Amino acid sequence: MAEQWLNEGLYDSWGQRFRVRKELAHVKSPFQDIVVFESDSHGRVLMLDGVVQITEADEFVYQEMLTHVPLFTHPDPKRVLIIGAGDGGVLRRVLEHKAVEKAVMVEIDGAVIELSKKHLPMIAGEAWNDARADVIVGDGIAYVAEAPDASFDVIIVDSTDPIGVGEVLFTDSFYEHCARILGPEGLIVNQCGVPFMQADELRETSLRRAKFFPHVSAYVAAVPTYVGGFMTLGIAAKGSDPTQQDTVHVRNRAQSSGILGKTQYWTPEIHTGSFNLPPYISKHLPQKD
Amino acid sequence: MAEQWLNEGLYDSWGQRFRVRKELAHVKSPFQDIVVFESDSHGRVLMLDGVVQITEADEFVYQEMLTHVPLFTHPDPKRVLIIGAGDGGVLRRVLEHKAVEKAVMVEIDGAVIELSKKHLPMIAGEAWNDARADVIVGDGIAYVAEAPDASFDVIIVDSTDPIGVGEVLFTDSFYEHCARILGPEGLIVNQCGVPFMQADELRETSLRRAKFFPHVSAYVAAVPTYVGGFMTLGIAAKGSDPTQQDTVHVRNRAQSSGILGKTQYWTPEIHTGSFNLPPYISKHLPQKD
Repeated sequence: MAEQWLNEGLYDSWGQRFRVRKELAHVKSPFQDIVVFESDSHGRVLMLDGVVQITEADEFVYQEMLTHVPLFTHPDPKRVLIIGAGDGGVLRRVLEHKAVEKAVMVEIDGAVIELSKKHLPMIAGEAWNDARADVIVGDGIAYVAEAPDASFDVIIVDSTDPIGVGEVLFTDSFYEHCARILGPEGLIVNQCGVPFMQADELRETSLRRAKFFPHVSAYVAAVPTYVGGFMTLGIAAKGSDPTQQDTVHVRNRAQSSGILGKTQYWTPEIHTGSFNLPPYISKHLPQKD
Repeated sequence: MAEQWLNEGLYDSWGQRFRVRKELAHVKSPFQDIVVFESDSHGRVLMLDGVVQITEADEFVYQEMLTHVPLFTHPDPKRVLIIGAGDGGVLRRVLEHKAVEKAVMVEIDGAVIELSKKHLPMIAGEAWNDARADVIVGDGIAYVAEAPDASFDVIIVDSTDPIGVGEVLFTDSFYEHCARILGPEGLIVNQCGVPFMQADELRETSLRRAKFFPHVSAYVAAVPTYVGGFMTLGIAAKGSDPTQQDTVHVRNRAQSSGILGKTQYWTPEIHTGSFNLPPYISKHLPQKD
């Protein structure tokens, strides 16, 4: 059999490629083109519209940083809203926080959930069956527009890049509603791409969020299959400034929650250190006075 | 004209690919296969034996972290030995430190130096002409074997991975001589690959260095074209433990040297923070008692 390689189509002139052992699913949903395949190098891989979303081998980096950073930054997160993240990996990490009472997940594409349950069951584990989880197949934009004021503590947006179905998750209107439905200490996190390749994404998202949140910043994670150096996770907060955190306090929180020592990427030191941005990244954020 | 893509050959089943605008040089030296090309995405790219060594667009990440971390960790670095680094980028960053009195660079492959001078002149800048620089085309192993005791403060090894011509830079004998020719506060830095893909490289190098240095650790850098998440830079020290550094002290050193504010990746906070390793990386280092 001839070797089969799959080239990621995210960038025009550069990118990663995987040797494919076996294609497990290829579905055109009403929203996007979904491929799940078994790779030689990274276990199972989920691609949406030709862009890698998650691989079995390195999912822990993105999921831990997207989840544990906001949940240990908010002083008392009980109600968490997840937009996207149809593979269930963020839901699983959120539910590891025992203090969380409710995790609502709104994913627009039910096919991503179904294919993930079938082909990537290790990503979500038992999260789908947790009594605190409320998984909704629906439009995240409509959900935040209709949700009551101050009804969530943390919002995690695990979207695709601002192209295709994810584009509306990067608008003024979306962020305005997110600010409204968050409590006074509320904060929102969303992926802002890999600035070395996609600096506009971080710059524009940060400017939009700055209209509705007093504290707008970003932290970094080195995700192996989001190639191009650090990816940035944008964070916007209504209460305290997330960049001013104490490592010992974070460690104590992680110890109480039972999460300390069980992570593969996140640590209290990496948590606080991840807000120290290299100048080539920080120059794209709104400058503080 | 058909599109021309170049696939990096570092890993069997996964890797990056570049769209090639123009091949500038392709030389088989006595040591390796050398290609320089103009990419659409990253400016000029240097490959050795099919593996990306440096690109114009992201060279600052690797060079700054490989140079400024050891030079601001050693209390008073005056004599620096560079092994490899034929493109001249490390030499340039070393010479930015005004306190450095002598920088000896030993590169085994003169063709890399010549091709870099011709096609990548922006990498080294004026470093080749600095009176403090002593550029030797020769064998780094022989050089360290013959150098006098305690004749250097810092050794920077900018090698390929431990395959091909670079393999001998990862041996017991090499590290033993390095320890001998370093002064009492001396330290050595070398690239230890991308642990997500090449964990053996970090593990084995660290064990070897631990035979000759009391302090063996590593720090991380997210280099866009060394794909696969963090790369590790191994550091071994005869004097103080490099993992215990004070950010304010590093900042003061950088201020005095004129380097503060002129970097694109390195900052005092990133300097000290880069020693905080994710658990998936730290588990490959010798465990402290």
